[in-house]
Order: sequence, then structure tokens, then C-alpha cells
Amino acid sequence: MDELTQRHNEKMKRIKAARDEMMKTKTEEKGLIMVHTGKGKGKSSAGFGMIMRCIAWGMPCAVVQFVKGNWETGEKKLLREKFTEKCRFFVSGEGFTWETQDRERDVAAARNGWEIAKQQILDPEIQLVLLDEINIALRYDYLDIDEVVDFLLTQKPHMTHVCLTGRNAKPELIEAADLVTEFELVKHPFRDGVKAQRGVEF
Amino acid sequence: MDELTQRHNEKMKRIKAARDEMMKTKTEEKGLIMVHTGKGKGKSSAGFGMIMRCIAWGMPCAVVQFVKGNWETGEKKLLREKFTEKCRFFVSGEGFTWETQDRERDVAAARNGWEIAKQQILDPEIQLVLLDEINIALRYDYLDIDEVVDFLLTQKPHMTHVCLTGRNAKPELIEAADLVTEFELVKHPFRDGVKAQRGVEF
Repeated sequence: MDELTQRHNEKMKRIKAARDEMMKTKTEEKGLIMVHTGKGKGKSSAGFGMIMRCIAWGMPCAVVQFVKGNWETGEKKLLREKFTEKCRFFVSGEGFTWETQDRERDVAAARNGWEIAKQQILDPEIQLVLLDEINIALRYDYLDIDEVVDFLLTQKPHMTHVCLTGRNAKPELIEAADLVTEFELVKHPFRDGVKAQRGVEF
Repeated sequence: MDELTQRHNEKMKRIKAARDEMMKTKTEEKGLIMVHTGKGKGKSSAGFGMIMRCIAWGMPCAVVQFVKGNWETGEKKLLREKFTEKCRFFVSGEGFTWETQDRERDVAAARNGWEIAKQQILDPEIQLVLLDEINIALRYDYLDIDEVVDFLLTQKPHMTHVCLTGRNAKPELIEAADLVTEFELVKHPFRDGVKAQRGVEF
């Protein structure tokens, strides 16, 4: 065995020992409040990746889309065509808020979405709820942030996971969350004139 | 209509006009080199979210997992049980590198994974290839970064998307990529003693 290999193997042994020790302290299971925010790509994709995991494990789950909706996406297509039994799929918005240009309609759609969201979260059968792009509705105050955070902290069943996506997550939500990932845009091909493409963006 | 609503609607009209103008410049379609890196959660989930979109649209795709493998994950289970026709799934590694503690075995596994990856990328039928956790193999120099970047830049078919995930993406890869998202860890429940849970982490 050469020296590089030997040094590497010893280093990995130390890492494994430290990791095993650390993992012993990770014993709790609980439903998480998760936030995917930031300008980078992947916030919704990562939410749908978890939905896929739930479907695989037979964990009933639900999606409420807040401001996407009037166009066909891969995630909607697949969930509606293949997995209606395993994942409930709701659309409350009619597009991004600059598409409707009608605040009252946006507010009504967001409130409707939030009512559905609460029902799904309270449903003891459902184990993960994805509130896709809810941060946009919160940012424009279509929904009251205090009401949403208060509901999540006081009424969400202990083992239910809720994932909230969208840019500009409010500080109150980040404070309340168990897991927060900021998706930082390092490079995006929109800047070079590349359009949104099937399989990648929708 | 009250003043808030009117101001909002006018603002959204301006946003929509600016957006429509911008979208006119987004005309190109091309296969992207995408990198998901950083310490935050969601890098692989977001990759699998795109796999789900490809499956929905009937775009044949492939996954090569570099350093996960010896345990069952939701993504592996679902793809192997339901979508073997639509998504090819390969595992090259036997766990994280600190699990094997054997550099030579890790190098052999990574090289094997890279050979499979090249075949999948070159296959004209395949439209998106997810190289999950390949950045770990690159970081420890199990694979040569110059070889990988050179292959992606010179041999990847023009319309094929490739997504490379894992922490510590090498600068050469970031330089070569079209789309890079840094997943920044703002909060993670591991810190509070919560263990990895089904549906969320695997």
C-alpha cells in the first residue's frame, strides 16, 4: 500500500469514528418545518425530490402550488397521471403574480391555497406537505406571515413535515423553521439567453 | 378599487412588461452543465426533482450515484421499482468514502462510475444525466477534474443536460458550468439532534 493510500485510509478512519460518535447524538425524529429560499434554481425541484422519496416509501403527501399553475409542468403531469393515490396535488394560483395583474384575485387565490394547506397539514394521514412558492404570497402580504407561522408552530402535528419554497422567505418564517437552505445563484443560463427548458425548469 | 390594489396592479403591469421584454431575448435551447454544490440540504433532491420532470415528459434519462449506494433510498427504490424503462439507474460507490476506508476500492468504484457516466452522456437517446455526488469523487482526486471537464466541454452532445452534485465542487467545474447553485446551509436540524428521516433525507 503506498503512502497516499495509507494516509487516506487513516484519515477516513478518523472521520468515520468522529461521524459515528456524532450520529449517536442524532436520535430524535420529528416533523420538520423546512424552507427553500434564495435566488438560485432548485428550490421547487428539491421539494419535488422529497415528494418522490415520500411516494417511494408509501408516505402519503400533498402539494399546494401557490403561484404556479396555469401552465403544464412535469411535476404536475407526473403526479396527476401516476400518483393521485399517493400524493394530493392542489393548485391555488393562476400564474405568477405579474401575470394576473389583479391583486384581489391573487389574494383570493392565496387564501384559498392556505385553507387547503391547513387541511392537508392537519390531516393525520398526510406525512409531508409541500407549499410550493408560498413565499411569494407571503412576500406580497397576500397571506399574513404571523398567521402562517403561528399555525405551523402550534397546530402542525408533531410528525408532519412541511416544506415552504420561494424567494425572499420572511425572517419570521426562517426563525420558526427547523431546516433552511438558501439557494444561491452562482451562475444561471438565462443570463446568456438560454430559455427555460423541459425537464430542467419545468 | 382601493389605492393599495391599484398601486399593486400598476406595479405588476410594469414587471410583466419588463419580463416579457427580457423573455424575448431567451431563445436559445441547449444542453446544460449544471452544478449543485454547497453544504446545504437539497443538492441531490433537486437533481431527482429534474429526473422526475424528465420522466413526466418522456425524456429518457440516467442516474449514476458515486458515493451513495449501500443503503436503500427513496429515489433508488422508486426509480428501480417504477421507472426502469424511463430512467437508467447505476450505483458505482459503496457508501460515503469514510465508510469504506479503502482508497483503492473507492478509486476503482469512482472510475467505474465515470466510465458508465461517459457512456450515458454519449448515448444519443439520453437527455439528462445526473451524476450524484460526483463532486466527492473529484474532491478526493479519485477522478481527474481535467479529464471530466474536458469530456463535458468537448464530447457532451449539444442538447444533453448533465447535472453534477456534491459539496466542494472544484473551481474548474464551476468555471465550465452553465448553471451553478450553491446550497447554503442556514439551519439544519442535525445540529439539534434530529436524525436523518425517510422522505426528507433519503
